[in-house]
Amino acid sequence: MNNFIFQNPTKLVFGKGEIAQLATLIPTDKKIMMTYGGGSIRKNGVYNQVKEALKNHSVSEFGGIEPNPEYETLMRCVSECRENGIDYLLAVGGGSVIDGTKFIASALKWEGEPWDFLVRPLKVTEAVPLAAVLTIAATGSEMNNGSVISRREFKEKRFFFNDACFPQFSILDPTVLYSLPKHQLANGIIDSFVHVVEQYITFDNKAYIQDYWAEGILKTLIEVAPKLMDNQEDYDSCSNFMYAATMALNGFITMGVAEDWATHMIGQELTALHGLDHGVTLAIVYPGVIKVMKADKREKLLQYGERVFGITTGTEDERIDKTISATEEFFKSLGVKIKLSDYNIGNETIEEVAHRFGERGYNLGERGKITPEVIKQILNEVR
Amino acid sequence: MNNFIFQNPTKLVFGKGEIAQLATLIPTDKKIMMTYGGGSIRKNGVYNQVKEALKNHSVSEFGGIEPNPEYETLMRCVSECRENGIDYLLAVGGGSVIDGTKFIASALKWEGEPWDFLVRPLKVTEAVPLAAVLTIAATGSEMNNGSVISRREFKEKRFFFNDACFPQFSILDPTVLYSLPKHQLANGIIDSFVHVVEQYITFDNKAYIQDYWAEGILKTLIEVAPKLMDNQEDYDSCSNFMYAATMALNGFITMGVAEDWATHMIGQELTALHGLDHGVTLAIVYPGVIKVMKADKREKLLQYGERVFGITTGTEDERIDKTISATEEFFKSLGVKIKLSDYNIGNETIEEVAHRFGERGYNLGERGKITPEVIKQILNEVR
Repeated sequence: MNNFIFQNPTKLVFGKGEIAQLATLIPTDKKIMMTYGGGSIRKNGVYNQVKEALKNHSVSEFGGIEPNPEYETLMRCVSECRENGIDYLLAVGGGSVIDGTKFIASALKWEGEPWDFLVRPLKVTEAVPLAAVLTIAATGSEMNNGSVISRREFKEKRFFFNDACFPQFSILDPTVLYSLPKHQLANGIIDSFVHVVEQYITFDNKAYIQDYWAEGILKTLIEVAPKLMDNQEDYDSCSNFMYAATMALNGFITMGVAEDWATHMIGQELTALHGLDHGVTLAIVYPGVIKVMKADKREKLLQYGERVFGITTGTEDERIDKTISATEEFFKSLGVKIKLSDYNIGNETIEEVAHRFGERGYNLGERGKITPEVIKQILNEVR
Repeated sequence: MNNFIFQNPTKLVFGKGEIAQLATLIPTDKKIMMTYGGGSIRKNGVYNQVKEALKNHSVSEFGGIEPNPEYETLMRCVSECRENGIDYLLAVGGGSVIDGTKFIASALKWEGEPWDFLVRPLKVTEAVPLAAVLTIAATGSEMNNGSVISRREFKEKRFFFNDACFPQFSILDPTVLYSLPKHQLANGIIDSFVHVVEQYITFDNKAYIQDYWAEGILKTLIEVAPKLMDNQEDYDSCSNFMYAATMALNGFITMGVAEDWATHMIGQELTALHGLDHGVTLAIVYPGVIKVMKADKREKLLQYGERVFGITTGTEDERIDKTISATEEFFKSLGVKIKLSDYNIGNETIEEVAHRFGERGYNLGERGKITPEVIKQILNEVR
């Protein structure tokens, strides 16, 4: 096991009916900016529940944060917060709204152009306090310090971390998933799944519990996925999925182990260049990564195949191939197409993605072996 | 899954050589009281490492905190802290030292007799900040808000919780286990194991990940135990065991599930009355609990047998009996005797333990079905 430092101060408030807790979770002397997305919270009742719980608070609103939250939009909210003396941010939405709100919270404490802490090497360490009411299970943003922001003007999608951006609390009511569009449910399942494998399918870290815990999340996602696709209003499936998505990216499974993240980094570029849903990009790229990197990931792929999919027969090479196929079939079972050609993406994009990482001057993967050349191989594998 | 609230702010600093981090983890303007036990830290080098790291800090010392930390001893430290204007406590030791230090930290902020918050209904919510350097893997106190204190004068052992007692940080260097006496290693493995089953072997909570995670810790303990008993200086085994002990009682596996704790409550009385090691009491009592409560715990015992011990053949009743035997054999494999008669404990104690819970007026177990009568059955089962 590698040496590590871990801390996650976010309070999780989980379960049906818990949105009402907002009334006491935020001090009444705070000036709150409530942020949200395209308005689905008005249809599913969450907006009314939040407003009811906060009826004795001072609440401003900023709606319209888009999927892959946009720098220009968020900067407008930063101005409104400054004008209104906001000192508490409440994100009501999915990962895009929460990520966007983390950016707003950080930008409010940043002197100068906030784009600078997205392109680094400047590091942001302060933020206005924020909390979340989660409406989509997927990104894990509700219990971590990370955020991904897009700037369509530059066709860029960039991430940052800020320890002051751990939500003070996040409320997770699984019944909010009952009315989520099916494709968002599928994307969320894929996103959670790939978060786990990015932290698990690397090499043997001699970290036994971390492996069992990663496998436990994967097995749970595989178990609940077909049930959810069949009946979205099943509380057991919704609650286990929502819990899985949070546990997949809150640092609990990553203590003392190596991490990959090549799939996320490459996928991010496909979204930046073509606007593909984040979950879709992962379902496309991940099979390519494990095909091209299968020698490096050999031991873990065998373990993943056996413990998660029960693949125990055949030669080792056959078992690895079956395991990769089982992963592809899982993504496809969620109704997602997993080839670049399904989205009319070809060689020009492959070259551009490789070029971008070449320019940034760092390689990807748990051993830093995924060079721009290997990125091309990966994307050609899933063409 | 049940509704729940979770928060654990403790920073974990894990790995070989990490004690040196103390130098920057505690602000230099703090007046620190370093607490410890019987002096093993002078033999294993931890004392010198701590003193070296804190050479630019103001550090007082209080040694001699005993196993099952004693109220009178801790109250002496409270006086010394007051006299010296202490505003930071650093526990260097195992669960007893950390529990004792949590008590000192709370008592320093309590007006009146601190025994009152051990016998309740008064609740303590404030504490002087504290941190820990762990030297024994067992109780999980390094990453939770609980503490158990003994008062030999009354033959009592009582617990309290205080959210202000989550250590600000805990440093876990697995190499400290290299020189731990074998019986403490065995006790620690049993303590960690029983912490997990108290949160796992109840009934079906429809909490899939929590089950997998509990099983992952149990399997890890079963895997590392014989390796550790054979070669205590194996870093992989020490690090995985130390990690397991912390994860067993930091709230990570208990979100949204029922909890038992009958074994701990009954075992605590055996320590109070006879001075038995905590781990030993658990190894005695737990088999009695699952024998007497096997109808209530049926579903979970079958799952535990199959997933943890690989018991899949025979009728359900046979599988449960095999599972209970496997649990007993695991405890015995650590060199611990698991019958009351091995410790010359007989009917008088059984009656006294039942009487005590009768007086307190509450039943034990995840469904509150363990009455004083059932406590007698459990203890007679392991006589």
